[in-house]
Amino acid sequence: MVVGYQTYIKLIRSLIKPDAEVFSGTMGGEVERAKTAVSKALENHRVVMVSSGDPGVYGMAGIVLEVASLEKADVPVEIVPGVTAATAAASKLGAPLVSDFAVISLSDLLTPWEKIERRLEAAASADFAIVLYNPKSEGRVEPLIKAYQIMLKHMSPHTPVGVVKQVGRQGEKATVTSLKELLNVDIDMVTTVIVGNSATKVIEGKMVTERGYDL
Amino acid sequence: MVVGYQTYIKLIRSLIKPDAEVFSGTMGGEVERAKTAVSKALENHRVVMVSSGDPGVYGMAGIVLEVASLEKADVPVEIVPGVTAATAAASKLGAPLVSDFAVISLSDLLTPWEKIERRLEAAASADFAIVLYNPKSEGRVEPLIKAYQIMLKHMSPHTPVGVVKQVGRQGEKATVTSLKELLNVDIDMVTTVIVGNSATKVIEGKMVTERGYDL
Repeated sequence: MVVGYQTYIKLIRSLIKPDAEVFSGTMGGEVERAKTAVSKALENHRVVMVSSGDPGVYGMAGIVLEVASLEKADVPVEIVPGVTAATAAASKLGAPLVSDFAVISLSDLLTPWEKIERRLEAAASADFAIVLYNPKSEGRVEPLIKAYQIMLKHMSPHTPVGVVKQVGRQGEKATVTSLKELLNVDIDMVTTVIVGNSATKVIEGKMVTERGYDL
Repeated sequence: MVVGYQTYIKLIRSLIKPDAEVFSGTMGGEVERAKTAVSKALENHRVVMVSSGDPGVYGMAGIVLEVASLEKADVPVEIVPGVTAATAAASKLGAPLVSDFAVISLSDLLTPWEKIERRLEAAASADFAIVLYNPKSEGRVEPLIKAYQIMLKHMSPHTPVGVVKQVGRQGEKATVTSLKELLNVDIDMVTTVIVGNSATKVIEGKMVTERGYDL
């Protein structure tokens, strides 16, 4: 049985056997999907839970383990790692993450905004490169503006910034710009934003964080 | 032509055609390998530079782009993303990285220790889960002790910690322990350490960072 968010099920439809049982759900239905997966596994089905990117990075790995434990379901869970949006996007932009970096989701659905803000402050002030997941959605514009303001307090406006839409999917588009231009770039829910650190340069159009090799 | 650190060349030897030219180098020979790759590409060879994990995370992606630019080598460079040790290790431990996290290398060969320390302070004080790359080597024991002390200033000693040796390779071993026991675990250069945040629990032996779903 294959369980997953409907958008991801569509993306892998050609890989799913025609006779396989499929449970696809909508955004916000994560708990329902995890419970379905666990209860089907308890009925001795082999269940695949589909995540995009790496299931352990803002994905379904955690909730499946939590639900399995809550329901005292003694079913083996194997987590298959994947390429997460941070490194997929980095590979399209150049090499912005070859030194220390922080990964922060701007979605405050599950995390209080105060905590996200504290993490942005900490990462920006300690010169991490910063990867922003879920930077913006139709109804959620304010977090990106606030993140921009926090980063500008600590970082140069000329810090290179990379924006990748639909990474690894049809319509992929990578843009290299600077922090001061961040709010002028087309950014939505399927966009990953990478903000360089003080050692990040734009080299031949690519974002490269210099590590200090003696060249 | 295949260029890479000798340990990685050995790991993929069976994938390399017997008649392919191979340039393998030792640790510390990164600049030489990048220069070799670029100069061979300029001679119209197709060159593969091998990194382990993801080439954009403490890997060779950056230095290849830097060297190509320095030598004004107009050769196309494609960076192929991979599964980095952070998410590979996370998948073996459970789901410690499903919320915001910071990635920090404890190697001070290229980064001044003061900067590493600042990043550790920032990440620990802002409740990031923390992934430590290069936690320790034979001649470098002090950084891990200092990192331990910094994290204990901000985090509970009971914070779950996962330690994975040789992730994805022969001899892989994953251990879940707590922050206060960190220095009692067998850790070396091929070990990845993941320190949870305040929402990380040990559930059925697995490390899970709870995101706050209403279960």
